[in-house]
Amino acid sequence: MKKSLIALAVMAAAGAASAQSSVTLFGIVDATIAHGRASGTGAANKTALANSGYNSSRIGFRGTEDLGGGMAASFWLEGSLGNDDGTAGQRIPVGNQNVLNGASPTNPNGVGDGAGLVFNRRSTVSLSGGWGEVRLGRDYTPSFWNLTVFDPFGTNGVGTTLTLVGPAGGLGTAGNAMAPVGTRGVIVRASNDIGYFLPANLGGFYGQFNYWLGENTFNGANSARDGTGWGGRLGYGAGPFNVAISYARTAYDATPVNPVQPITTTNTFTGAVAPTAAQIAAQRAGDFRTWNIGGQWDFGVAKVMGHYTREQRDSSAGNAGTGIPASGEIDGRGWLLGTLVPVGAGEIRASYSTYKIDAGAGADPRARQLALGYVHNLSKRTALYATAARVQNRNGAAVSLNGATLGTATSSTGYDLGIRHSF
Amino acid sequence: MKKSLIALAVMAAAGAASAQSSVTLFGIVDATIAHGRASGTGAANKTALANSGYNSSRIGFRGTEDLGGGMAASFWLEGSLGNDDGTAGQRIPVGNQNVLNGASPTNPNGVGDGAGLVFNRRSTVSLSGGWGEVRLGRDYTPSFWNLTVFDPFGTNGVGTTLTLVGPAGGLGTAGNAMAPVGTRGVIVRASNDIGYFLPANLGGFYGQFNYWLGENTFNGANSARDGTGWGGRLGYGAGPFNVAISYARTAYDATPVNPVQPITTTNTFTGAVAPTAAQIAAQRAGDFRTWNIGGQWDFGVAKVMGHYTREQRDSSAGNAGTGIPASGEIDGRGWLLGTLVPVGAGEIRASYSTYKIDAGAGADPRARQLALGYVHNLSKRTALYATAARVQNRNGAAVSLNGATLGTATSSTGYDLGIRHSF
Amino acid sequence: MKKSLIALAVMAAAGAASAQSSVTLFGIVDATIAHGRASGTGAANKTALANSGYNSSRIGFRGTEDLGGGMAASFWLEGSLGNDDGTAGQRIPVGNQNVLNGASPTNPNGVGDGAGLVFNRRSTVSLSGGWGEVRLGRDYTPSFWNLTVFDPFGTNGVGTTLTLVGPAGGLGTAGNAMAPVGTRGVIVRASNDIGYFLPANLGGFYGQFNYWLGENTFNGANSARDGTGWGGRLGYGAGPFNVAISYARTAYDATPVNPVQPITTTNTFTGAVAPTAAQIAAQRAGDFRTWNIGGQWDFGVAKVMGHYTREQRDSSAGNAGTGIPASGEIDGRGWLLGTLVPVGAGEIRASYSTYKIDAGAGADPRARQLALGYVHNLSKRTALYATAARVQNRNGAAVSLNGATLGTATSSTGYDLGIRHSF
Repeated sequence: MKKSLIALAVMAAAGAASAQSSVTLFGIVDATIAHGRASGTGAANKTALANSGYNSSRIGFRGTEDLGGGMAASFWLEGSLGNDDGTAGQRIPVGNQNVLNGASPTNPNGVGDGAGLVFNRRSTVSLSGGWGEVRLGRDYTPSFWNLTVFDPFGTNGVGTTLTLVGPAGGLGTAGNAMAPVGTRGVIVRASNDIGYFLPANLGGFYGQFNYWLGENTFNGANSARDGTGWGGRLGYGAGPFNVAISYARTAYDATPVNPVQPITTTNTFTGAVAPTAAQIAAQRAGDFRTWNIGGQWDFGVAKVMGHYTREQRDSSAGNAGTGIPASGEIDGRGWLLGTLVPVGAGEIRASYSTYKIDAGAGADPRARQLALGYVHNLSKRTALYATAARVQNRNGAAVSLNGATLGTATSSTGYDLGIRHSF
Repeated sequence: MKKSLIALAVMAAAGAASAQSSVTLFGIVDATIAHGRASGTGAANKTALANSGYNSSRIGFRGTEDLGGGMAASFWLEGSLGNDDGTAGQRIPVGNQNVLNGASPTNPNGVGDGAGLVFNRRSTVSLSGGWGEVRLGRDYTPSFWNLTVFDPFGTNGVGTTLTLVGPAGGLGTAGNAMAPVGTRGVIVRASNDIGYFLPANLGGFYGQFNYWLGENTFNGANSARDGTGWGGRLGYGAGPFNVAISYARTAYDATPVNPVQPITTTNTFTGAVAPTAAQIAAQRAGDFRTWNIGGQWDFGVAKVMGHYTREQRDSSAGNAGTGIPASGEIDGRGWLLGTLVPVGAGEIRASYSTYKIDAGAGADPRARQLALGYVHNLSKRTALYATAARVQNRNGAAVSLNGATLGTATSSTGYDLGIRHSF
Repeated sequence: MKKSLIALAVMAAAGAASAQSSVTLFGIVDATIAHGRASGTGAANKTALANSGYNSSRIGFRGTEDLGGGMAASFWLEGSLGNDDGTAGQRIPVGNQNVLNGASPTNPNGVGDGAGLVFNRRSTVSLSGGWGEVRLGRDYTPSFWNLTVFDPFGTNGVGTTLTLVGPAGGLGTAGNAMAPVGTRGVIVRASNDIGYFLPANLGGFYGQFNYWLGENTFNGANSARDGTGWGGRLGYGAGPFNVAISYARTAYDATPVNPVQPITTTNTFTGAVAPTAAQIAAQRAGDFRTWNIGGQWDFGVAKVMGHYTREQRDSSAGNAGTGIPASGEIDGRGWLLGTLVPVGAGEIRASYSTYKIDAGAGADPRARQLALGYVHNLSKRTALYATAARVQNRNGAAVSLNGATLGTATSSTGYDLGIRHSF
């Protein structure tokens, strides 16, 4: 239910036979009373008026121009809203700031939490035709799609799948090496992205390929690779069936790269001694990689969906002296199984998700979560919803829900009660 | 005079009988040449091109959806404009940042001065019906309404009532304890607010009740109360007559609460020794409280209006060792008397306002102000205006107008000359 | 091709004969693959997805109200877009932040790079009639117009004229005193500006006069002048011919002004000893001054254009002890010659520009640049473009293109390949 701001003056000026043009103002305002609980010594509960419990709050402008001959140009500018306190750009799910790719959240110049209105959700210009679409700017990574599309809670609110929370750092810092990933890899969105999308009408096949630039100065030193990455997604949907796979990789070179011994074979910048082949391989192994697969079957009485994801950033034995921190090894994996059950004007939502990190010698931190919710649609634009979730941590994992502080007990429970209004 | 961006495309798609929907883009651009003067040794004058001399500069988006059966859903996103220098979110009257409630102005994530566009003036989603309206997000506190509605200058520009400037910290820091209030209490707006509004058509009665969340972790320690508050307003308007009262209270616990001796009877968090009942009472007395009453009578040839306000944050004798600073005692009160006189296409505005703080043993800082202005309407949307005000300080109060630096003389004079254009 | 958001509801409410009112939402999304190269030891190349390679990316709102009698009120709010990474307010050409006039880019409150959406490009309210237009707010300085209008590349992208890059600090810091100018003078835009524009239909003559306020406290001390300035532009255009001259001056007093010996004859603020007349003259000489002249002739097969600019901030011999830094002397000048050649649906663009700084005793840093580009219009709103430029530095000048790091060789080459879409 978007508003099309019809260009009356333009149409009049251009004549009756002109191509149709429109700019659409759109958005979502989603407010939720969010309560989080934990127990045991040191536990603390929290109650907040939060946003984006069902859908991500946002405001945006988009439009399309018909260029003739099947070609079109279009733009899409969409920013997040912290409508509970009037801020913008706030409460992006953890870990999607793409620190190495684009601006840093700790940099006031950046696409961080709580800056004024920025088009951090999507900011693109496109050219499309029968051959597909080329899209430039900031957009979702191809690997994020399977996590959100095949999550009954759409990676929003207290029921957000652990397969997003986990790799984004949500398993906590105590005793696991996965935590830094969220600040390194490009998990949800990539800035400075060049994307190609397959055209529609390929008999159910769909897909995309993306390349994002870290925008570091390139001179042969590996540190120039930081934040540059690529990924792809290929799917097939027909009738009640939909399945897709994706892969993505973002370069991560240890920071700081030792300028005396850069990890490169050809270095014209400093004239330093070239590293060994083993050192180079070790450096490459530090890149953040993710692949996942997801699918859904619509049985009519219910949609059943699931996905599996794996994230890796290894350090081989040869990393001594390369500048890669010893804590850099990660190998995480998780899965979700969920369902959506239509009930009159509403929908029941349920999911079970789990994520585990292989921390090498020590115990592997892992968490599992059960989430249950109901959405009642007052109209196509307005809905009331309630969600409850409970997470159980093991081996030092520290996922808490809705801002609760974990105590000696390892579980946390969270509730959302809210309203979603779109325009 | 708001623009309704009629959703032609949506209406066409939804069919002729669909419910009416619209999104409105609205705003005000108000620029003023602001000059402030002071005299005596150390005095300094200032001239600026400022904003919001007559009405607060702003830009916003709002809309309503008819849900049928008398129900409606709506949203309102409105941010301030610093149109003199292109910034946004700037020059909010002092003290309304709700530091403890929502984001801090010193926090770059926050709803502070000069951040990029944030919807800091209002950011709400509502559900309404014959039973009234429930509104969630950031909005005016109930107690602010009487100060602005019953001020001929609408708490904007150099003539802004001292009953707002005073409790917000405007009386200065020298020798008075009121100054910190502005950084503590929720005076103008509250974030994370849950509001209920009475329906219209109650025979002239109107009212609202609000509860705002400080969003601190709750574990029984009193510090979790910080920034949480509530307030209400009840009024009656009929014919030329309008009167309203309000009360509001925001929790303020001394910062930092001594973690060794938290002010609480039940503390499962640290296991510390519980405080005495006297200590708890002392802590509660530190909350920021305000109540006020205002009214107006429209005589036709002139509207006469006035209001009285009182703000309190006491410290009882038992606060030794509780962590409440000794300077925490405040007890301020003030009043305004003003008038609006229509003159052809224009309006004369005049007010006298005063505010005083009971500083305990020392002399009580106080200030009084006379303001006079004229607004000339070029149309309903566009007006030219001029305002002059003079403030007189006593006993260490330090209100200066339009950025002048006070000298040894205690008075300050300010002038606004500007244009207000709304869309 | 702007969208006029016709106020249907307003027009209906106001009746059929009401004055026409409209608010226009407009913008440009321009994305470019930007590559910069340099050579020699220490050189480093860079590739980025950037914005504004052809036109400055932006989003804005503007509108006009007919007041009757030939009078109109209007507003214009326009902010820049960093659409490559979703930020706003980013990649304003260097040096236009008007540090002394309005907010500082290092101040998070300011109109700096990368803040959330701010209306940093233009933020004005106007009143106009047969006598011209008075405009209040943030706007271009009169002296910037000749640089951008008479540059084939419109001061955007890798081909931006050195006559802008040079005075804005682009010639680097090594061995030249021009660098700080960009942080001192008001080169591109001024905040807190009061402008007057001549009416149209003066037989081809056009012009403007602007006065911008530094908004420092005025008490007779010269430091109160900081950032205050004025400027004017006068032009004549008829048929294929167009020429304009401009002058601007912004006060710059050495920072910090010595409070013990302020540069003033009458100082009631500190009661300090008044400076000598020579010291005052020296101080005034530190003001940033610029003047330029530009013109264009449209031969039909090609437009030929050029401009000359000079910037000055002197320090006379008497500045010892005045607080003016010894490195404060600058005297820069440069010129551009360029052409635009229409080719079918496209346009070839070419320019040669140069800038030099008289650094006093040492060698004078200077740079020269050749730029060549082609724009292919897919429609009036959408274009593809490619630009190449090469800059040559001498005597310590350090201009690099598209973020390349200069090596021992003094030249840099840059390429833009992009798409511009307006709405």
